[in-house]
Amino acid sequence: MEKLPEYIESRDGDLWFTENDRDRILLSYKVEEILAVEQSPFQHIMILDLYDYGPTLVLDGVVQSTSVDGQIYNEMITHIPMVAHPTAKNVLIIGGGDCGAAYEALKYPNVIVDMVEIDEAVVRLCRKLMPAVSRDLEDPRLNYLFQDGFKFIADSTDVYDVIIIDSSDPAGPAESLFTDDFYQMVKNAMKVDGIMICQSESPILYRETLRNTRASLKSIFKNVKTCIAAVPTYPGGIFSFTCASDAIDPSQWNGEWTLDTRYLNKDIYKAGFRLPKFIEELLA
Amino acid sequence: MEKLPEYIESRDGDLWFTENDRDRILLSYKVEEILAVEQSPFQHIMILDLYDYGPTLVLDGVVQSTSVDGQIYNEMITHIPMVAHPTAKNVLIIGGGDCGAAYEALKYPNVIVDMVEIDEAVVRLCRKLMPAVSRDLEDPRLNYLFQDGFKFIADSTDVYDVIIIDSSDPAGPAESLFTDDFYQMVKNAMKVDGIMICQSESPILYRETLRNTRASLKSIFKNVKTCIAAVPTYPGGIFSFTCASDAIDPSQWNGEWTLDTRYLNKDIYKAGFRLPKFIEELLA
Repeated sequence: MEKLPEYIESRDGDLWFTENDRDRILLSYKVEEILAVEQSPFQHIMILDLYDYGPTLVLDGVVQSTSVDGQIYNEMITHIPMVAHPTAKNVLIIGGGDCGAAYEALKYPNVIVDMVEIDEAVVRLCRKLMPAVSRDLEDPRLNYLFQDGFKFIADSTDVYDVIIIDSSDPAGPAESLFTDDFYQMVKNAMKVDGIMICQSESPILYRETLRNTRASLKSIFKNVKTCIAAVPTYPGGIFSFTCASDAIDPSQWNGEWTLDTRYLNKDIYKAGFRLPKFIEELLA
Repeated sequence: MEKLPEYIESRDGDLWFTENDRDRILLSYKVEEILAVEQSPFQHIMILDLYDYGPTLVLDGVVQSTSVDGQIYNEMITHIPMVAHPTAKNVLIIGGGDCGAAYEALKYPNVIVDMVEIDEAVVRLCRKLMPAVSRDLEDPRLNYLFQDGFKFIADSTDVYDVIIIDSSDPAGPAESLFTDDFYQMVKNAMKVDGIMICQSESPILYRETLRNTRASLKSIFKNVKTCIAAVPTYPGGIFSFTCASDAIDPSQWNGEWTLDTRYLNKDIYKAGFRLPKFIEELLA
């Protein structure tokens, strides 16, 4: 019998993938098919077809994006800042290897999107095997740049209207994307009236990451606002995104919703910023 | 070594509880302490202190209510109908053994609450060991009735303003609470301007239950509306509640939020009914 990839085991003839969250929660999913396994220079990559969630991107044993709820994450991280910026044209995505954020950003006709993903293998595999998320994206307005986002942004000044930091967790290749130095460079790369957003982890299980992210951004930007959404396959279930800008407060947006989206609408957008009291208390 | 309760195993000296969802997803939580185990005439009951979620009620191996996110479920199932009913006085809770729904209902000064829970042991253990949820509830306005909800409601006509069906899943002691016969009796037990709500499972993983519940209620009531909330410890993460009434449409409620709640606020209430398109499609 061929050796199974790391994170997968066979039980009673079925394959199971298990995500270990801090040695406190184990999430196991029955696997219909292992679609791809690759060890890139940066991380262990799998695309697994899960019974309940369809083709799913797993990096270093952690679910990044499924064909069922990947859209929730990608719509949140993209449209929260894009809707709030009245004239966004130059968009930078750091990470975003499943191509879902880029797909959402290209729904705005006048944008040019630079997507800086360190790991070409993630993009290649997602384009081929995760069509519901990646849409095998090719568009003349989209530039794929397979580079280190930290280094890329150090060389950019006053360029972007919207910067989307669509990273994996702080442990691993994305570690440098959760630092004060990085956020300062993000600010330098942004136009003065620009806005950035980052994923800031689950307020239920990763309170420190969220609190630290907010504190770092508050030392650099005038407006720092956190919003939440339900992403079922992320441990903790409720997930947070934090926006920062000197010019824009996305929690005050009040326009019409005209986008074709599968999760977001105007009410969900606005309610995302009206945090439940128990989450306000976690942030305090 | 003493025999471990069903659903619990020891690994490397740690205790782990595992919930098996349809043999497709396994959710394992590290257990800090087993607070209680009891086999009642109706079900296997455990109160487990989980590292991430604190004291947690588990029935027949399925998480019902945790000290972290139990409030989300209990606030939704109680305040969604209570807020929408302008003059609710007589409230019936079917199930609700963790006492969280009764605690929320008693936030309205003029109510009288009948709580009909089949299993006295659940209430006794939750009152003692789940204080964050049950508040060891004693109140002259609350009647604990340890009876079969199905039989109880057959004997009630034109009594209640609000009926809250806070049941466990359809497999097990709550099975009869998901039938057309039961919903017809709920209607008979309700005043003509009353409103009922039931938990209608995860729209991600239990689409058929949600679709069947809505179809049954639509054959009996004029207004049937489903709303959603994120309940992290329920498989599927996004959970649904369905309201039915001949007189009230809770999705149109637009008053002021004056309650002291930890999850709900006006924006979250209203957005709960503005279902994402992908969930609308699941219901169609």
